[in-house]
Amino acid sequence: MDAGIIGLGLIGSSLGLALRRTGLFERVVGYDLNERTGRQALGFGCVDAVVPSIGEAARCGRVFVAVPPSAVRPCLEAIEAARTPETLASDCVSVKGTVADWVAARPDRARWLLGGHPMAGNEGQGPEAADEELFRGATWVLVPFGDEAPVGEFDRIVRTIGARPVLLAAEDHDRAVAVTSHLPHILASCLVHASADLGEAFVSAGSWRDLTRVAGANPPLWQQILLANRRRILAAIDDLLTSLSEVRAALEANDAEAVRAFLEEARQLKLRQGGTD
Amino acid sequence: MDAGIIGLGLIGSSLGLALRRTGLFERVVGYDLNERTGRQALGFGCVDAVVPSIGEAARCGRVFVAVPPSAVRPCLEAIEAARTPETLASDCVSVKGTVADWVAARPDRARWLLGGHPMAGNEGQGPEAADEELFRGATWVLVPFGDEAPVGEFDRIVRTIGARPVLLAAEDHDRAVAVTSHLPHILASCLVHASADLGEAFVSAGSWRDLTRVAGANPPLWQQILLANRRRILAAIDDLLTSLSEVRAALEANDAEAVRAFLEEARQLKLRQGGTD
Repeated sequence: MDAGIIGLGLIGSSLGLALRRTGLFERVVGYDLNERTGRQALGFGCVDAVVPSIGEAARCGRVFVAVPPSAVRPCLEAIEAARTPETLASDCVSVKGTVADWVAARPDRARWLLGGHPMAGNEGQGPEAADEELFRGATWVLVPFGDEAPVGEFDRIVRTIGARPVLLAAEDHDRAVAVTSHLPHILASCLVHASADLGEAFVSAGSWRDLTRVAGANPPLWQQILLANRRRILAAIDDLLTSLSEVRAALEANDAEAVRAFLEEARQLKLRQGGTD
Repeated sequence: MDAGIIGLGLIGSSLGLALRRTGLFERVVGYDLNERTGRQALGFGCVDAVVPSIGEAARCGRVFVAVPPSAVRPCLEAIEAARTPETLASDCVSVKGTVADWVAARPDRARWLLGGHPMAGNEGQGPEAADEELFRGATWVLVPFGDEAPVGEFDRIVRTIGARPVLLAAEDHDRAVAVTSHLPHILASCLVHASADLGEAFVSAGSWRDLTRVAGANPPLWQQILLANRRRILAAIDDLLTSLSEVRAALEANDAEAVRAFLEEARQLKLRQGGTD
């Protein structure tokens, strides 16, 4: 059986490297809208071959869709038109509502499609940043749409490349990543904006490096991600504003006990989350 | 000549290890209010000897004050009372206004005292977390109070342990760290608070780990730091709120172009800061 990867950016290319090494598939083939990206992925050994259309990739037994959020729907429609009866597919888009809605419109799609989100990345882009270890130890969310068959199959594949599958409903996933991924990206960018006036006085340490690492990463991609999950993100921003207003009021009132309680509660919450990231 | 370190927490103990290795001083002695901390620091080889009072440490040729913000003023007064004519001292407190005000009250203090802030740390506390490489490559802000002698001397010492000295006025330092250190600590804690309701749906990736690394670190210390610099931090919070409100409005209006401009500007600012952290 062959695997097909549609979209050979950082995620698709890294997945190609990881899948080729497992020996689970006879061939790992890839497709990218950008021919140059396809040639690069082939050159870096991310895929065994590049195919000229989504339809051809969709005739593989297992298909991964690793395209930007705005491209996922047309891509799924092309797969639906071209797939074989044995094809099982999963996507890698970091917002699951769009895919869930698409399946809900025709529930039989759940027989061959599973939602997915590999929670891994780096600051690079495209095949030149591909890393066959990118998914090792990373959470890979799987979003079942009502049919068991694709769940067992993709659970097995993602475990083989070292990821930790976690089953979540689309709704729960999108609410969680709004807080744990999308809001941090926004805050990293806000922090950089807030530092714009420091000029020559700019000095920093490790906390700055860590908190702004993802600032401004891949604006065209993140623009799509933020807009695709905007309702959840607005709620997450509002939760953060509540908490920030509390600590702001405590500082303004010079209320030492309230400042300490805020920090101590965060410490306790963080300790409880400790093992899960 | 001996060096004296007052306060043997993470910074003081790490400094002891680093100074002992340089061979710049005959002995590195330490004092801590907590006798057990002093014994630990001695046991880990952070100091050659523990002395029983601030006064005794203050009679060393070079003195470092590595106590929490609330203890710095009484500590400086004890040094002033006990120092020898050759004693030069610098502090390590992460907010410089308090020390600057103390010097401004009696400007001759500038002859023997220099403000300082080693911008380094880790998640540990006390001598058991001490790291002789903690300051290597780190910015060490030096805040001159009008006299050249201590500047040249401490510049030389901090370079010898691998730090990068940066001269700043107290005002500029406190404005900068409000944005690049204190605000990130607050946001890390706010993010953790915002995630409290996720429960079983909590999933995360590298950006969460990075952005919340410092959440709730050492609440009693950070309570003091945040209160000591609260006016600057309030201004930094307000700058961040402006930027967060902008991106919130763009998301609410589904304004793709504004979201992209926000991310792209952050990217450009971050690239310009690239080499300086």
